[in-house]
Amino acid sequence: MDVKRALIVGAGKGISASFAKGLAARGAQVMLAARNTDKLADLAGETGALTESCDAGDPASVAALFQAADREMGGVDLVLYNASSRARGGIAELDPADVEKAIRISGFGGFLVAQQAAKRMLDQGHGAIFFTGASASVKGYPNSSSFAMGKFALRGLCQSLARELSPKNIHVAHFVIDGGVRSDTRKEPEGKPDSFLDPDAIAQTYLAVLDQPRNAWSWEVELRPFVENF
Amino acid sequence: MDVKRALIVGAGKGISASFAKGLAARGAQVMLAARNTDKLADLAGETGALTESCDAGDPASVAALFQAADREMGGVDLVLYNASSRARGGIAELDPADVEKAIRISGFGGFLVAQQAAKRMLDQGHGAIFFTGASASVKGYPNSSSFAMGKFALRGLCQSLARELSPKNIHVAHFVIDGGVRSDTRKEPEGKPDSFLDPDAIAQTYLAVLDQPRNAWSWEVELRPFVENF
Amino acid sequence: MDVKRALIVGAGKGISASFAKGLAARGAQVMLAARNTDKLADLAGETGALTESCDAGDPASVAALFQAADREMGGVDLVLYNASSRARGGIAELDPADVEKAIRISGFGGFLVAQQAAKRMLDQGHGAIFFTGASASVKGYPNSSSFAMGKFALRGLCQSLARELSPKNIHVAHFVIDGGVRSDTRKEPEGKPDSFLDPDAIAQTYLAVLDQPRNAWSWEVELRPFVENF
Amino acid sequence: MDVKRALIVGAGKGISASFAKGLAARGAQVMLAARNTDKLADLAGETGALTESCDAGDPASVAALFQAADREMGGVDLVLYNASSRARGGIAELDPADVEKAIRISGFGGFLVAQQAAKRMLDQGHGAIFFTGASASVKGYPNSSSFAMGKFALRGLCQSLARELSPKNIHVAHFVIDGGVRSDTRKEPEGKPDSFLDPDAIAQTYLAVLDQPRNAWSWEVELRPFVENF
Repeated sequence: MDVKRALIVGAGKGISASFAKGLAARGAQVMLAARNTDKLADLAGETGALTESCDAGDPASVAALFQAADREMGGVDLVLYNASSRARGGIAELDPADVEKAIRISGFGGFLVAQQAAKRMLDQGHGAIFFTGASASVKGYPNSSSFAMGKFALRGLCQSLARELSPKNIHVAHFVIDGGVRSDTRKEPEGKPDSFLDPDAIAQTYLAVLDQPRNAWSWEVELRPFVENF
Repeated sequence: MDVKRALIVGAGKGISASFAKGLAARGAQVMLAARNTDKLADLAGETGALTESCDAGDPASVAALFQAADREMGGVDLVLYNASSRARGGIAELDPADVEKAIRISGFGGFLVAQQAAKRMLDQGHGAIFFTGASASVKGYPNSSSFAMGKFALRGLCQSLARELSPKNIHVAHFVIDGGVRSDTRKEPEGKPDSFLDPDAIAQTYLAVLDQPRNAWSWEVELRPFVENF
Repeated sequence: MDVKRALIVGAGKGISASFAKGLAARGAQVMLAARNTDKLADLAGETGALTESCDAGDPASVAALFQAADREMGGVDLVLYNASSRARGGIAELDPADVEKAIRISGFGGFLVAQQAAKRMLDQGHGAIFFTGASASVKGYPNSSSFAMGKFALRGLCQSLARELSPKNIHVAHFVIDGGVRSDTRKEPEGKPDSFLDPDAIAQTYLAVLDQPRNAWSWEVELRPFVENF
Repeated sequence: MDVKRALIVGAGKGISASFAKGLAARGAQVMLAARNTDKLADLAGETGALTESCDAGDPASVAALFQAADREMGGVDLVLYNASSRARGGIAELDPADVEKAIRISGFGGFLVAQQAAKRMLDQGHGAIFFTGASASVKGYPNSSSFAMGKFALRGLCQSLARELSPKNIHVAHFVIDGGVRSDTRKEPEGKPDSFLDPDAIAQTYLAVLDQPRNAWSWEVELRPFVENF
């Protein structure tokens, strides 16, 4: 698929930044959305990306984001949903408000973004909607019920949409990031290279899936470091 | 497990009614909770069950329900979460408010109920929390994204809690009801007996799982009619 | 299902003995098959079971076993395939002959037994075929490739047969025994009761699945001790 | 990974030919193995590949094949197991000899090839072992028990080896080809382009997985046409 206009929701420094750079290097116009766009300035400068503020869990905010994409880029060919939220702790200790937020951002926000994307892609007859998942998307861990709920919900959405939208020429894909992701503040321990996922390596697979001809699409791809237990 | 006090949230005429009768026949005091308790009168009369009004997606309402259970039954040994909500239609047609409600009732409400149950069961050192799932719990169907999100979320919650609470002597189990359930208004076509699940047959397996010694617990059981495709 | 004639292949002291006792207590005539029938004498005495020698991986031996069942019991209503074999070790160290045997006994033997059972059950219009699986049925562990191959194969067989034979009134079910099973020589460590599965508890669930009405059948049930990691 | 020496077992005209061309275009020396090497002449001519006759289900033949790879290419960096066999029909009609062969070629042969590959790759400290799976690898279809057994077994092997060998710098990956593959004799119906998988498109993803840095490896990737039901 030839991507000219890409939108990344939940953009930051990790996977989304590497993916944005990869898309920009191919000549795509990228729009980056986050609750707080201040942190996106460097990435925007480097990639020529537009930035928009958005609360991914709010229907009006997501609608406004896509209107900005229409206005500024003339629509979207590819959307990545990369936002998530979680509350940590045992079931008895969690604050229901935090859990509600975790489900809203990790799950419901994915729906809102996918819906706006699908409306445009169904009209234009092509598109790609990608979702960033986690280990918690396929395994519910103890003391992590809020994350399990949000990420399972997102995966359910993606699987439903893969069945619904693939036949309409829209590639829906879900990536299970099963391990720690390397960042400026989170690096592998001494002597254990490649035990965290490199955002550039993750983006490389996102791009490879984007390049799949429609007669051979993946809807789900797991990625993990070679030393990760699973 | 010897169940003296059982709470069913999302009670109605089908699975929950059969399960309530089975529990009552074993001598348990049952409390039935639903948004509208009018429809529960007959069942309450037949089983001696208490009834309480509850909005399963509202933290305060769920907290009040469990306070009623404490007050009226002296707590709970077993809780079944049986509530769900869904919005039907293609991704482009869905009203986000309906999707938000579907996730809240099918998923978040399960968390609220499980949390109140777990607080009590962790204190008393025993208990069982059961969840009613559906085909949509394990397969995201096209034009059914809201149901997939809610039911996947509920399954993620249950799997997380099975890992978290089983070692603390609380049996967490999830039932995948994979087929149509027989009711007064939904009966098998002529000549196709047993092509819908009978609520009594479902309840029979719920009770069998309840009877499992803790050295041999199931966390998930699928049930479907013998002629159902899967 | 009313089971009058039951055949257990791969019978020994654990799960199969408990299941045989449960069936005999319900009035069923049981036939126990193993490579070496010497070890079955006590159980046969206790349950009134017949015993037959059988190499589960050999087509002629399995055919002869079912002919004995026809002759001695007038056929079979229920068959449990409980045999397995494994070779331990890293991929580089395994003897291919041991791996071939592991696949033959754990997997191919299941086919041979299921085929003989299905021929009879399709004719009589009812029956149940149960398979004992393991953790390795659903998760391939390192240094355990032979067991993964045999048990995955058996599960593939069972899933295929569940789809093929259920609509013909034959209940096909697979049990994932996910943990250590208690035996005379393998008991829980001091202070850790119920950390191994009790064969009687496992058999209790086998019998509960056997009792499921055909409008609410399970094809797969996992069982594990409450403290088991999964 | 820089692949200089690649071995494809079960080579023919489809996936393996496209993959061989892709590897050759990157400068790798390829060896093609099949029971009958006559059909490999054109492909060998086009790619400069070596050819060897091999019965993938026979330990001695597989050992000899790898000795040829040692002798002719100085070893292997990448091995693809692409062989399979199946018997079609309902459980009651199948010939046990055909089922035994299906399991031996689809499953046991994968073990034999992986073992020879692993011995060399563990010594040299790097390598990749890929397996071609099918829809039947993850779903047991009715009237297809032999294929389910062979392909489930192969997947179990691959999952076990992914856990065992990945930490030793050997990339083990399994591809679920979920749809019909286009060939000279099997083309899409008129008006339904891209409803069969194109072998070149499949090979493109095999190569993309080969290119994954070891901090972000996939062990399993599904591929299907955009219109395929799943």
